Amino acid sequence: MKAQIITIGDEILIGKTLNTNASFIGDKLTGIDFEISKISVVGDDEKSILREFEDAFANNDVVVVTGGLGPTHDDITKKCVTTFFKTELEMNHDILAEVLEFTKKRGVKETEKVRGQAMVPKIAEPIKNTKGTAPGMWIEKDGKVFIVMPGVPYEMSEMFEKYVIPKLKEKFKSSLVTKKTTHLLTTGIPEVVLYEKLGPLEDLLGDGKLAFLPSQYGVKMRLTVQGENEEDAHNKLLEIEQRIRAKVGRYIYGKDDDTLEGVVGRLLKDRGLTLAVAESCTGGLISHRITNISGSSSYFERALITYSNGAKVELLNIDEDLIEQYGAVSMEVARLMADGVRKVSGTDIGLAATGIMGPTGATPTKPVGLVHIGICDDKVCTSKEFRFGDDRILNKERTSQAALEMLRRNLLGIPYDE
Amino acid sequence: MKAQIITIGDEILIGKTLNTNASFIGDKLTGIDFEISKISVVGDDEKSILREFEDAFANNDVVVVTGGLGPTHDDITKKCVTTFFKTELEMNHDILAEVLEFTKKRGVKETEKVRGQAMVPKIAEPIKNTKGTAPGMWIEKDGKVFIVMPGVPYEMSEMFEKYVIPKLKEKFKSSLVTKKTTHLLTTGIPEVVLYEKLGPLEDLLGDGKLAFLPSQYGVKMRLTVQGENEEDAHNKLLEIEQRIRAKVGRYIYGKDDDTLEGVVGRLLKDRGLTLAVAESCTGGLISHRITNISGSSSYFERALITYSNGAKVELLNIDEDLIEQYGAVSMEVARLMADGVRKVSGTDIGLAATGIMGPTGATPTKPVGLVHIGICDDKVCTSKEFRFGDDRILNKERTSQAALEMLRRNLLGIPYDE
Repeated sequence: MKAQIITIGDEILIGKTLNTNASFIGDKLTGIDFEISKISVVGDDEKSILREFEDAFANNDVVVVTGGLGPTHDDITKKCVTTFFKTELEMNHDILAEVLEFTKKRGVKETEKVRGQAMVPKIAEPIKNTKGTAPGMWIEKDGKVFIVMPGVPYEMSEMFEKYVIPKLKEKFKSSLVTKKTTHLLTTGIPEVVLYEKLGPLEDLLGDGKLAFLPSQYGVKMRLTVQGENEEDAHNKLLEIEQRIRAKVGRYIYGKDDDTLEGVVGRLLKDRGLTLAVAESCTGGLISHRITNISGSSSYFERALITYSNGAKVELLNIDEDLIEQYGAVSMEVARLMADGVRKVSGTDIGLAATGIMGPTGATPTKPVGLVHIGICDDKVCTSKEFRFGDDRILNKERTSQAALEMLRRNLLGIPYDE
Repeated sequence: MKAQIITIGDEILIGKTLNTNASFIGDKLTGIDFEISKISVVGDDEKSILREFEDAFANNDVVVVTGGLGPTHDDITKKCVTTFFKTELEMNHDILAEVLEFTKKRGVKETEKVRGQAMVPKIAEPIKNTKGTAPGMWIEKDGKVFIVMPGVPYEMSEMFEKYVIPKLKEKFKSSLVTKKTTHLLTTGIPEVVLYEKLGPLEDLLGDGKLAFLPSQYGVKMRLTVQGENEEDAHNKLLEIEQRIRAKVGRYIYGKDDDTLEGVVGRLLKDRGLTLAVAESCTGGLISHRITNISGSSSYFERALITYSNGAKVELLNIDEDLIEQYGAVSMEVARLMADGVRKVSGTDIGLAATGIMGPTGATPTKPVGLVHIGICDDKVCTSKEFRFGDDRILNKERTSQAALEMLRRNLLGIPYDE
């Protein structure tokens, strides 16, 4: 079964908004075995929208449209849907009641614009919006499905996951092929090295497919198989995954929606260990990522963002002379920071990062991108040098990833230097 | 002049990678007055790619393609370009020398795959890649331009900004119309309230256009005008902007590529003030954002991520009984955190956030989404309550934005409660 995703909005075309909606929808549709034939983005322009509706509805089983449903003047999607399906708008009183309750709770005045949100094309079944005022629409015609949702990501994702996906599964269950995909997440190893360590792909994969997706966080490997049935596909996937793990398992920190912060969080929780972090160059990013995980308060005690040297001396009890002697960005200071934060916080593990993120701050011997990460527990206290690039934000992201990976390896007893 | 952006890669279709490249390119092309007619995403499949090349090259002046140029087996873009332009690949020795130097520096072995990166279609002028091994391509035919770049974002962005944009400006300078766009960035005010405060848009805009782009960080207003020439467009834009500012200026924290963290950073720097932050619920995100700004070390002294109550007592000198009495998430504790971090750090300003980010942690009187933000300087010490939603990550992002906005208002003397 084929699906196309259409995103409406000048703001995506001109690059001021990322198309997170298309990604989200593509991911979820792939997860229930739809093949995404195309993603297209068109502007807030009636002609372009109608042409895209036509082409997409002719060539796919399902079309998913987002954007242009808001209360302001440049939101013309509902009008285009009405034209395309030769139908008209009518007031939906269930939706109206919800819209009014929602706006009242937020202290927004009831106006004609607010009430207008509850007008729905006759042909459509409205989809409730629990996080905003614009309802979605489910339209069936000629055995195909046309879905329209608002563009605000958290409104769309809620209605897509809770309503659209179950309904699509139900409607198309007999036609969906048995395809399975998994993502193996690696970090700390370049794409080409990973590729070469795996050896000849045919031997490894059989008729499976493998794609390499590099980013500043590492290389994802996307593995896809087709099977005769659910069980067959599942077993094939597992078999190939085992063969891949046998070759590069130590670099794989997780699968699919795993995050490195989630993986280390589980490891810390399972072992009843506590963590404190001292950050200089990352300025809070490591702690931010750790605390993105719900329940992190059970293992994360505190972080000290010691941006100034004074804060390093005062909060981490590092000897000022040693900072003077080695420099704040050095293996010695990284180790002292990790040791210091562990001791003052009374945690099992201390993790620390210091580096030069750029664009300024380089010295003749210390270039932008130089980073030292320290980690200490009750047995070892060590640090490792990294050399990243010259982009400040990428450097912060890479440093946070490398620090969390050092923590993962510490927890699993994998050496840092391979 | 019209441009289409084509992104190649299954990883975008299936939603595992965000199409940041299309956004980046759309933004930059709009900035030099190109109209983006469409963004399309197609898979790693020769037929789909060639069909999209054909359609895009027939209907646009410029086509920009990214993705599928890597060293692995699923990268087929170069082959498709060669087929589409009926040309062949040849070894480019300048590029080869760079590829080999680059891989040597990274400690990657020279292999056939590595050398293959330097093969370029005869019709193309290669574009150097200073951050990776796959060169880009600039192809001219029939007065049109066809550009191909690697999909790795930081490789693409570097070559697009430094090489492609200047070259496009030069080539098309006589045909580009005089259009100007600016984005006014607001926060702390809902879209519909902003819309109503502006009053009738025709009076405000004349023939200008205004779009509202809401997100968890606030509402962006995109203002676009066309003028007879550069100066005319510039003046029109300024005039309308002034009228908008007269109505909703206090909610506008910046323009275009401004960030709230950059704006408060400039204010702090200009006034020679220093800042310390105490974070509980945001777990480091506020400090991370502040330190994304190069030069932040001149005003940002430290942050204390006091995730546990023990850390609040110990590091911020907050009376344990008061935490017991009011709860860690309360206006009193937010104020004590801001006051505490200011005093222990010796800075001019202390900023603090405490809240319940969810999904767990709610109590009968304190729901998920409840946040208190405190701010103290040498004159005032206050806190404000916010009620956000039920998504942990969105709540962290909203809290960080609200905290930085309170800091901005404090620095500018704008009241918090309007």
